[in-house]
Amino acid sequence: MPELTTAQFDLVFNAMSFTIVAMLASFAFFMMVREDIDQSLRIALTLSSIVVGVAAYFYFRMFESWKSAYALVNGVYAFTGRTFNNAYRYADWLLTVPLLVSALVSILGMPREYARGVNFRLMVAAILMIVLGYPGEIANTTLSRAIWGALSTIPFVYILFVLFSELGPAIGRQPAEAQVLVRNIRILLMGTWGFYPLVYLLPIAVQDLNTAPLVVAIQTGYCIADVLAKCGYGVMIYAIGRAKMDAEKPTRQRTTSSSGQD
Amino acid sequence: MPELTTAQFDLVFNAMSFTIVAMLASFAFFMMVREDIDQSLRIALTLSSIVVGVAAYFYFRMFESWKSAYALVNGVYAFTGRTFNNAYRYADWLLTVPLLVSALVSILGMPREYARGVNFRLMVAAILMIVLGYPGEIANTTLSRAIWGALSTIPFVYILFVLFSELGPAIGRQPAEAQVLVRNIRILLMGTWGFYPLVYLLPIAVQDLNTAPLVVAIQTGYCIADVLAKCGYGVMIYAIGRAKMDAEKPTRQRTTSSSGQD
Repeated sequence: MPELTTAQFDLVFNAMSFTIVAMLASFAFFMMVREDIDQSLRIALTLSSIVVGVAAYFYFRMFESWKSAYALVNGVYAFTGRTFNNAYRYADWLLTVPLLVSALVSILGMPREYARGVNFRLMVAAILMIVLGYPGEIANTTLSRAIWGALSTIPFVYILFVLFSELGPAIGRQPAEAQVLVRNIRILLMGTWGFYPLVYLLPIAVQDLNTAPLVVAIQTGYCIADVLAKCGYGVMIYAIGRAKMDAEKPTRQRTTSSSGQD
Repeated sequence: MPELTTAQFDLVFNAMSFTIVAMLASFAFFMMVREDIDQSLRIALTLSSIVVGVAAYFYFRMFESWKSAYALVNGVYAFTGRTFNNAYRYADWLLTVPLLVSALVSILGMPREYARGVNFRLMVAAILMIVLGYPGEIANTTLSRAIWGALSTIPFVYILFVLFSELGPAIGRQPAEAQVLVRNIRILLMGTWGFYPLVYLLPIAVQDLNTAPLVVAIQTGYCIADVLAKCGYGVMIYAIGRAKMDAEKPTRQRTTSSSGQD
């Protein structure tokens, strides 16, 4: 790993520290607000809580790994020999990415049988996407990285196909405000998830990955992408739940007449 | 950083330790009492919980940073060379200040569309206030500190304008007891937030900032201001929620007749 200036080391240090607290804060937030939405949709926020809780754990480990990879020697951060453990990211994704797609399916509130099938297919695709990406991450040659990367892209494209085509009718049945939010969350998902393959392809495009600016840019970029794809995503899941609840409120008050909502 | 006596070092050490537990205690308290107020207002206490939870995290980091900045040598605390990381305060404020204004807007329970607009404007102003303050904090010259400070004051004044003028009608529609509390919380907000610019201006007024009494006064002062502006503020948000609920109770009991409230 390359030598870093204090500013470069601190940027990654602070980005990881910020990500830890963003994940922890989101964990507490999702756990609380799940009780504010309709019971049938709560599982979506339960899943969102687990996603950010798991991510907080792995970011804490990455933070420790980052600190132990470097030591301050004569005003610059020198590599200690303990390589930063990138495998934590894959372990995190293996657990959280299937839950992220499942949260989106859950908040749509589709008929049980159908939802279960879509959920299963999307979760399997998400797991395949991560599992097929990892051998390329640790591969020594550009060729094998490219092959595993291409294989990993197949389930990614499949997930996008399901979200943007197959789920179209289910999204069309959402209340107006929720429809807009679901369309936005799909774009957030595609935009943030698109960042990971870009970083994955870097070693194929760039000759030397071990330059200080590149290491700093990749680690900081992952932090930003993870905060958007997990915390921002969960907040949108919550917003969809609220919008659906508000849209149903008048109907419900009519049917349950007097007592109704607490 | 200046050499400190053990009493000076311990005062900051204890103030930070006290602030950590005040934030953690408030976090647990707000999480619990959110369920005791009307569902439509709970989000205000959810936000208050997140604010103090995030602050607890950053105070824990500051506590560690403070400890590593000093070492006891021959009965006095000497600077170790690891400067106390003031950036933690800005990271904390960047996350918590927008949530504080949002909690106040939420507890007023204004019509959805209008609340959303005010919320957005206040949160943007809060973020600008912090973001514009930071370059001045790390600036080398008094002039650039003054310029950034002045720029940061613009959104602060805008926030005060919205709270004290634009929100007047909405506050007038609150139940009597809640009105008094909302007026008080505005004063608490103005009073505690006013402390931060005073500290900010110190380096312009005082020639040498690195004297022991000043460092101790600033760090202890920040702790007191943060406890009042976050824990005290949240307790008042809770009091407003309770007052509103109590004021609505007779009406609700009349409509729901017998069973009703738990």
